[in-house]
Amino acid sequence: MSTAPVLVNGHWVASSATQTFRAINPKTREVLSSEFPISPWSEVEQVLVAATKASFAVNGWSGSRFGDFLDQAAIRITGRAEEIVAKAHEETGLPVSPRLKDVELPRTTNQLHQAALAARDGSWSMATIDRKTNIRSLFGPIGPVAVFGPNNFPFAYNGICGGDFATAVAAGNPVIAKAHSSHPETSRLLAEEVFAAAQETGMPAGFVQMIYRTSHEDGVKLASHPLLGAIGYTGGRGAGLKLKVAADSVGKPFYAELSSINPVFLLPGAIAERGSDLAAEFTTSCLMGCGQFCTNPGLVFVIDSAASQAFVADVASRFHAAPTGPLLGEAVLTGLVNGVETLVRSGAELRCGGKPIEGAAVSFQNTLLTVKGEQFLRKAEALQTEAFGNVSLIVQVASAEELLACIEHLEGNLTGSIYSAKAGGDDELYGLIELLLRRKIGRLLNDKMPTGVAVVASMNHGGPFPATGHPGFTAVGIPAAIHRFGALHCYDAVRPERLPVAIQDKNPTGKMWRMIDGGWSQGDA
Amino acid sequence: MSTAPVLVNGHWVASSATQTFRAINPKTREVLSSEFPISPWSEVEQVLVAATKASFAVNGWSGSRFGDFLDQAAIRITGRAEEIVAKAHEETGLPVSPRLKDVELPRTTNQLHQAALAARDGSWSMATIDRKTNIRSLFGPIGPVAVFGPNNFPFAYNGICGGDFATAVAAGNPVIAKAHSSHPETSRLLAEEVFAAAQETGMPAGFVQMIYRTSHEDGVKLASHPLLGAIGYTGGRGAGLKLKVAADSVGKPFYAELSSINPVFLLPGAIAERGSDLAAEFTTSCLMGCGQFCTNPGLVFVIDSAASQAFVADVASRFHAAPTGPLLGEAVLTGLVNGVETLVRSGAELRCGGKPIEGAAVSFQNTLLTVKGEQFLRKAEALQTEAFGNVSLIVQVASAEELLACIEHLEGNLTGSIYSAKAGGDDELYGLIELLLRRKIGRLLNDKMPTGVAVVASMNHGGPFPATGHPGFTAVGIPAAIHRFGALHCYDAVRPERLPVAIQDKNPTGKMWRMIDGGWSQGDA
Repeated sequence: MSTAPVLVNGHWVASSATQTFRAINPKTREVLSSEFPISPWSEVEQVLVAATKASFAVNGWSGSRFGDFLDQAAIRITGRAEEIVAKAHEETGLPVSPRLKDVELPRTTNQLHQAALAARDGSWSMATIDRKTNIRSLFGPIGPVAVFGPNNFPFAYNGICGGDFATAVAAGNPVIAKAHSSHPETSRLLAEEVFAAAQETGMPAGFVQMIYRTSHEDGVKLASHPLLGAIGYTGGRGAGLKLKVAADSVGKPFYAELSSINPVFLLPGAIAERGSDLAAEFTTSCLMGCGQFCTNPGLVFVIDSAASQAFVADVASRFHAAPTGPLLGEAVLTGLVNGVETLVRSGAELRCGGKPIEGAAVSFQNTLLTVKGEQFLRKAEALQTEAFGNVSLIVQVASAEELLACIEHLEGNLTGSIYSAKAGGDDELYGLIELLLRRKIGRLLNDKMPTGVAVVASMNHGGPFPATGHPGFTAVGIPAAIHRFGALHCYDAVRPERLPVAIQDKNPTGKMWRMIDGGWSQGDA
Repeated sequence: MSTAPVLVNGHWVASSATQTFRAINPKTREVLSSEFPISPWSEVEQVLVAATKASFAVNGWSGSRFGDFLDQAAIRITGRAEEIVAKAHEETGLPVSPRLKDVELPRTTNQLHQAALAARDGSWSMATIDRKTNIRSLFGPIGPVAVFGPNNFPFAYNGICGGDFATAVAAGNPVIAKAHSSHPETSRLLAEEVFAAAQETGMPAGFVQMIYRTSHEDGVKLASHPLLGAIGYTGGRGAGLKLKVAADSVGKPFYAELSSINPVFLLPGAIAERGSDLAAEFTTSCLMGCGQFCTNPGLVFVIDSAASQAFVADVASRFHAAPTGPLLGEAVLTGLVNGVETLVRSGAELRCGGKPIEGAAVSFQNTLLTVKGEQFLRKAEALQTEAFGNVSLIVQVASAEELLACIEHLEGNLTGSIYSAKAGGDDELYGLIELLLRRKIGRLLNDKMPTGVAVVASMNHGGPFPATGHPGFTAVGIPAAIHRFGALHCYDAVRPERLPVAIQDKNPTGKMWRMIDGGWSQGDA
């Protein structure tokens, strides 16, 4: 069977690759038939040159043109949903329904439509006009964006149609998608629809391109290439940090989602009030999607007591009884085996699970570990090793003081959740925890597990390093996520007819929000 | 004479330094009498711990408290203006009037007042409320900010009272100021007033602190320290990049202004219309403050012709005739000698100047160089060496095509200026230049030199690497500059009484702009 083509400069062409790879079906470990190229540097360079040409070709285009493309991409993906979902199920083992068909695909097309709306509206660009000095500014396109998608969201974070893609395009940038090699055929199907939408809406040749894989060296060259504007990366910390170093060395914005274990604090009053409900809620959140979410609660803190020990035992029996699904692939399984081994070697105790499950599917026992707070303080770094999957570690601290000391040792995370007594009994401790925790996380939750990520303007799917590379940006939530792919463009005494339409005197849509002389306005300047 | 004290944790205390330094008067090369400490790591660590304590102490404070402090700091600085200006003149050689007294000091206090206004108003924090999902977010304090001030703006960029200081405080962050060692006594006087203002307005002990100097190793340790929130740095590229690598390695936002040569394009029609006016305007801009501005026009492009050759000759004679002032110090002079040597070695030709001026003052001849476009293309990197001071290089290109090729070789800059015929004769070429140039610069100017930096909301004093570390941020212009020192804080289902006041249902000031359900509003949620 021939190798799948790559999408380069407006054509599906045979890759010049000499090396190829195949994906597997994680439910059966069967190697799938399609073969995909590992693109050589010359191909990556071609892609970069074509993307740069495309970025100049769309210079000055109104946001509505990008909106039309994004909407059409969503429509086309929806039109081929059945085939795409079936292929994603085959390549990832994720359930067809509700997960892929009823949740992730609609979320993905919703993101595309939201980004389209924002592109048309233009308010995301923070157009700012100071009339007295005649200086004007706005966020404009940053240049070609390379998007490296992760293994765990074959649609919603896919380099060719996910959140980074949608927001990079909304800002007016061509995208170079790097498919994840665990679901290349899914990515190819999506890319076919997205590319067809680009053609239907008149986007230039190199505006959307896709390759499947490169060597690590070529990935690093891409991330630091002068023609690139920015990088969106979601994936493991090791590979991510290598790309980050490369991008940082030449000042290319590198928006990464690297790893997060999402601490959950279950305060004594909450456990006393509703310990069994919490055990159920936590188990559902932790095992959902086999734990393969960036916001999976991988670390829990309780103050040791008879009640919290009962809670731990309750969770352990629920973990033990709950079904396990297939993991996304062998790499995830290896990561779990290594992660659990590191936790155990660092003093954590297995309460249930801990081993791969024999059989056809790639899978791992639901695994719960515990560790004492004093041990956590001794091995804080190792005990924050991410075990990406259906694994969680409960830290049993001796006192509130020890709990606060543990927080001081936390790395940056996407989220932090605090459950406290409804009646108010934990409020003093809540205040102390929040003070320290706030600086370590992007999203703070009350009485709620972190696994739901609403796609709304106020969402922050970001957080301090190493959860991401910068605590001021979010990967989800529009318009904020679009800002990542904008550069601040200022116009000082530029002649009126040469200004971008968005900062000319007349409000281009009559509805766009612009900051005029210091206040937000939908009027003319 | 005893060594000057450092400002640590709410007290002026004797440094534990074993090494000291003194500044010089660049007009006379006289070594000034005051001795300043080179703080050891233990002292830097003390400062970090105190700043962290202060950052927790002000948690939840309303913006108006930071506003009161900033206003009071400005008032106190103004009250001691005469002494501060005299000392800055002695340490920097910059003219008392208009520069220090009538321009830079008022700009500095104006920045403090603007930041105070923004802190009170709160709209900078981009408070965002989605009622349906009950998710809310805003930019909150990022943690202690270290500010490394430059040599060329003893007030407006000083770590203890300049733009980075004002915006870091407006966001609610303590500041650790690193004075520039060329004007330590000026910094000490400013710090006395700022610290007194902090005490008068009830700021906690470690909220403003200042040290004078550290070893390079300790600077790197500071920039990558877990307790630090972010770094503001303005200065040379070499030292800046070392700090950037350290900060990047742990994901600390590093806002740097590193170097910029600010290309100016003089199109044929503009030279034909007003060549002599342009020569005068360019000379004034380039030699102002002895060329020691971040936005100094250090690189000019003209299309070679009799008219543009006449322009070059005109500028050379104006440079030759213009007075020179003292430079900021020996390091600037050394930089100029090396910079000009690099340019000449790379094929540039001296049209006037090129040598240090003998005598008491640290100074250098006004220097103009030219180089052919084809040579620029051959040695583009070396010919973009920043010669920080009264030096500029004119590139004489053979054609419009060669000009465009040169732009493709430009590094990132803060500004780019295009002068074109008023009558419209250059408009086609303007379009081609702008397309390429836009991506390389932060601020685009028409028919205007880049040296004036208005402190308004629409200003972008930023640009692509290596001008700064990220093309989405500006060091000047409020509220945008404040965002650098904010972290995105999201609250998901957090109980109403636990929310920051700015994202509770009620608009805290009745005037604060908040994004509610997708639109900007000054109302309640």
